[in-house]
Amino acid sequence: MEKKIKIGLIGLGTVGSGVFKTLKNFDYVEVVKIAVRNINKPRNIEGLDNSILTDNPYDVVNDPEIDIVAELVGGLDPAFDLIKTAIENGKHIVTANKELLAKRGEELFAIAEKHNKVVLYEAAIAGGIPLIMPIKTILAGNKINKIEAIVNGTTNYILTKMDVDGASYEDVLKEAQELGYAEADPTGDVEGFDAAYKIATLATITFHKRIKIENIYREGITKIRSADMKAANDLGYKIKLIASGKIDEEGNADVRVHPMLVSKKTTLAHIDYVTNAVHLSGHPVGSITLSGPGAGEFPTASSVVGDILAICAELGKSDYILPMMRCKDNCDAKMIDISQTENKYYLSITARNNMGVIGKIGTICAENGISLASIVQKRISDDNTAEITVITEIASEASMQNAIKLIEQDGNKVNSLIRVQV
Amino acid sequence: MEKKIKIGLIGLGTVGSGVFKTLKNFDYVEVVKIAVRNINKPRNIEGLDNSILTDNPYDVVNDPEIDIVAELVGGLDPAFDLIKTAIENGKHIVTANKELLAKRGEELFAIAEKHNKVVLYEAAIAGGIPLIMPIKTILAGNKINKIEAIVNGTTNYILTKMDVDGASYEDVLKEAQELGYAEADPTGDVEGFDAAYKIATLATITFHKRIKIENIYREGITKIRSADMKAANDLGYKIKLIASGKIDEEGNADVRVHPMLVSKKTTLAHIDYVTNAVHLSGHPVGSITLSGPGAGEFPTASSVVGDILAICAELGKSDYILPMMRCKDNCDAKMIDISQTENKYYLSITARNNMGVIGKIGTICAENGISLASIVQKRISDDNTAEITVITEIASEASMQNAIKLIEQDGNKVNSLIRVQV
Repeated sequence: MEKKIKIGLIGLGTVGSGVFKTLKNFDYVEVVKIAVRNINKPRNIEGLDNSILTDNPYDVVNDPEIDIVAELVGGLDPAFDLIKTAIENGKHIVTANKELLAKRGEELFAIAEKHNKVVLYEAAIAGGIPLIMPIKTILAGNKINKIEAIVNGTTNYILTKMDVDGASYEDVLKEAQELGYAEADPTGDVEGFDAAYKIATLATITFHKRIKIENIYREGITKIRSADMKAANDLGYKIKLIASGKIDEEGNADVRVHPMLVSKKTTLAHIDYVTNAVHLSGHPVGSITLSGPGAGEFPTASSVVGDILAICAELGKSDYILPMMRCKDNCDAKMIDISQTENKYYLSITARNNMGVIGKIGTICAENGISLASIVQKRISDDNTAEITVITEIASEASMQNAIKLIEQDGNKVNSLIRVQV
Repeated sequence: MEKKIKIGLIGLGTVGSGVFKTLKNFDYVEVVKIAVRNINKPRNIEGLDNSILTDNPYDVVNDPEIDIVAELVGGLDPAFDLIKTAIENGKHIVTANKELLAKRGEELFAIAEKHNKVVLYEAAIAGGIPLIMPIKTILAGNKINKIEAIVNGTTNYILTKMDVDGASYEDVLKEAQELGYAEADPTGDVEGFDAAYKIATLATITFHKRIKIENIYREGITKIRSADMKAANDLGYKIKLIASGKIDEEGNADVRVHPMLVSKKTTLAHIDYVTNAVHLSGHPVGSITLSGPGAGEFPTASSVVGDILAICAELGKSDYILPMMRCKDNCDAKMIDISQTENKYYLSITARNNMGVIGKIGTICAENGISLASIVQKRISDDNTAEITVITEIASEASMQNAIKLIEQDGNKVNSLIRVQV
């Protein structure tokens, strides 16, 4: 009998149990140890021998028998030290830890290279969607210079429900929390931290330059109003939380997470609820879109198991496995600050309803070098204010921010400023 | 200086020149020989040294210096013998030849395994979309049991234009031919041969069973009428040429190419013009959709170059490279004939406009065990006939064919029978 490849898991929650169940289908691998928080918790997992459970994750990373460790608990601590120890003990790593990769990926990859081990992380970004491995292998001939992605299921669920039901952010958030789509403290999702972790790593491997998390402009969805949703719809757009990245010919990178008006003519506009999608543009491939489930027990397990099987296939056949999957993107990108960028903008303004208010707003924009694509006065309220919706042509962020200040100084209220896909 | 990896190309047409130009960006590879039909044809390709051209493709496959041969001419003859010779001469192969793979892939892969060489073919199916490598690597943990794909750009262009412009098949085909989207003899595309070649290979690697081209049910788009397009739209569908595959728990495979009414709620309905898309469902991943350019100089080059670079990355590091990319799917699938399948159907009927004709059609369906999801009588023509549109629930193909016979025997004309996505 051929020797089975030995797998250790850290974590047996949603993802961990999906990985355990899926690996059962492959007779050449064997899960020999699993670190859990509570060893006595009842678990209903077919084929699980409780004697392989431990509540000390160092039992997994120090087990000399184990070839591959899958870290599935998340967070920085103790995940970083566990992975570091596992690598130093000669193990290859599979992880779904987007925060760790975004904040300490560079160190981890350096340790891995020093010990000639790989760290794979397909599951960390966009769950079950094949993304990291395709970018690093079959798309390797490309120079990809643009990413637009929906990588957070919670916010996409909330925005979709706001759109479909015409409901407020607060009401939909509450419903999402009840359904388990949003956490009790939703900050990590709704303020865009989760998406920022993901685009940090995705942009790094796509642009071949290290994108530091602290250089990513981040804006969440908490200020999106159902009135914005409706106005966007009327203008031919959907509002999505888009994690984006661009890199120019000189290597200047612009990486951000913020709500965006996305044309209904594009695929991204139709990615609804918890589905994720990643749109990549570059040469020679042109534009491709990869979409699918961004989270969940089994979709995430698909990616973790895919990484494990890729390592298994190479183990013992070569001492330098999976060369294309190594991290070689350690040169920091030159970053463009949001204040230096140019964008199209959607503006919602509650204006004093006097004669010429539209003209005044138009003049302020013109004086700041901002051309308008459309300006619509929607209705006059009982309090004698008017709702005005503006879509601009491409303008500099600095000019736009200045124009907003002037519009507000003139006695109007700017309800929303949302960037528009170009 | 490290020795460069030597590449030979067979073909320097659209795809070949894209590959040549793209490989120029990688300094560790060198194209050392290119077989062309006419060595004296003027070519405007930057960096091309005409001295590496030959009009004898055997000069490429017999060149002892060459490590990897990319076959980019298509067809069976002499492509099969060229690739066979190249493998026997110790070369790895990259090909974009869908017809060859569908008809003689099994032989080719056997020859390759015998000589411990790989044959990669990402470009053969869905052009620039990452598909084959993801299925064989990062999705390897899955049991995928359903494929629905738009893999022929010409027919998707024609159907999109018929839909958008309300034009007839004949008019749009003529326009597509003038624009170069359809060939002078469009048979290979419009009768579904091209899509059948692609789904043969795609289903084989996805289901891990060999799907023989002669067992694929095939129906083209030439009979689709603009009236069908309109009726489908009114019912919430688009008509697409779908290459599909299903495999059940017992390993029975149902693989086909035919027009299909696709719900506007699905991504495939919005894949327009020459774009391709592949929708895969299975466990544990769930459903994913990969879309992008299905043909063209550069998108196809992206996939050919991706395959070449994947081989390059492994060359010299191991004697058994890319184990996951090998073909191990040589056991023939048990096939389900179209006559044994169950489907939903769209029917367009021109009926004698007598009292009770709808009732009669309904009765014929009921007597054949066919439930109706909807039946609409659209209008009565000057010649006293009525246009009736039917959508059925799931029914057996045999019952449906029998019902059509009876409906026609009753003096009505069945204009179209198109299967509906379930």
